[in-house]
Amino acid sequence: MYVAAGGTGTTDKRLLRGVRTRHIVLRRAVDVASVEGLAGLSFGKLAADTGMSKAGVQTLFKTKEALQLATVGHAREMFVDAVVRPARTATHGVARLRALIEHWIVYAEAPLFEGGCFRVANLADYDSRPGPVRDALFRDQQEWLDLLAGELRHAVAAGEIPDTDPRVTAFLLDAVLCAANTALRVGNTDAIDNIRRIADTLLTAC
Amino acid sequence: MYVAAGGTGTTDKRLLRGVRTRHIVLRRAVDVASVEGLAGLSFGKLAADTGMSKAGVQTLFKTKEALQLATVGHAREMFVDAVVRPARTATHGVARLRALIEHWIVYAEAPLFEGGCFRVANLADYDSRPGPVRDALFRDQQEWLDLLAGELRHAVAAGEIPDTDPRVTAFLLDAVLCAANTALRVGNTDAIDNIRRIADTLLTAC
Repeated sequence: MYVAAGGTGTTDKRLLRGVRTRHIVLRRAVDVASVEGLAGLSFGKLAADTGMSKAGVQTLFKTKEALQLATVGHAREMFVDAVVRPARTATHGVARLRALIEHWIVYAEAPLFEGGCFRVANLADYDSRPGPVRDALFRDQQEWLDLLAGELRHAVAAGEIPDTDPRVTAFLLDAVLCAANTALRVGNTDAIDNIRRIADTLLTAC
Repeated sequence: MYVAAGGTGTTDKRLLRGVRTRHIVLRRAVDVASVEGLAGLSFGKLAADTGMSKAGVQTLFKTKEALQLATVGHAREMFVDAVVRPARTATHGVARLRALIEHWIVYAEAPLFEGGCFRVANLADYDSRPGPVRDALFRDQQEWLDLLAGELRHAVAAGEIPDTDPRVTAFLLDAVLCAANTALRVGNTDAIDNIRRIADTLLTAC
């Protein structure tokens, strides 16, 4: 959903400014949450980091939970832009899976977020804290697992890989990517080699 | 290292009381840190939870970092007692690996710690925060990876599994266990089935 930026009236300008401010705050919030976790977000700190007033930031998001949920949504959009969308040019099945993995490696290695993969940083943190934030994080992960399983199903149907349960293999692939992300954070770059070697084993005909 | 409990003098009794108090506080600290992370530990909260004085708890550990490091050490000991030690009765190689995995499943499913696997909860949280706590967590994980790789090496030498790089397979096994731990926290018990199916594939001759 994109907001049209054509209006010139005061209300349109205010709306536009609100959208921009929201974007700036959320971009910073994603970085902070990737390092310190979503629990580490605060209106005051985000205001200070982005040069805005605390009241201004608070008006945009109202509650801390709404800010956390908006941050999860923003991280998801950035992940889709960096990993999912660019892989869509590849053919369904093994080619698309390899493209997703390579884009994921760039995403985690660069990294896109200050603290590496947003989902890894926050899933382990929130897995024992029931509530809307945990639900949003797990929905996000499920969407990613479903995407991987769907491509694995294509690969099985095309005879590119043996007929194994796509959900189990998707679980395995995601587990390896998450573990590599954690290893990368302490400078263990062998993790990238591990991903590629495991992917080679999983994504070949026998 | 165990403290001898034979003495009867005032100093011995005081020492013994110190050791007991330390144990009670650390047992609680491990549970708190498995849910809220090591950053969530505080002298005041631990004192309240264990019915001790804040000053008493603070005297035992001096600094928050010392408390966090002692908590990592205590969680490690409990993990060794629950998972590593009972598996030692099994023969080196595939039998020992299967025993380690089964004991790990009980450890994560029961769970031994309120928030599930201590290492998973804290590694992702600390991976972007350099310092002694992160170092201790990664040393702990490395020790576990080395244990798995050592048994995989035995399995390869005995011809029980194909000759693949034990470090890559250990990385994969640990990744799957960590991901299952996170899935278990939201009640996804398919994760246990996933572990066993992946282990079956990894730990067979071809």
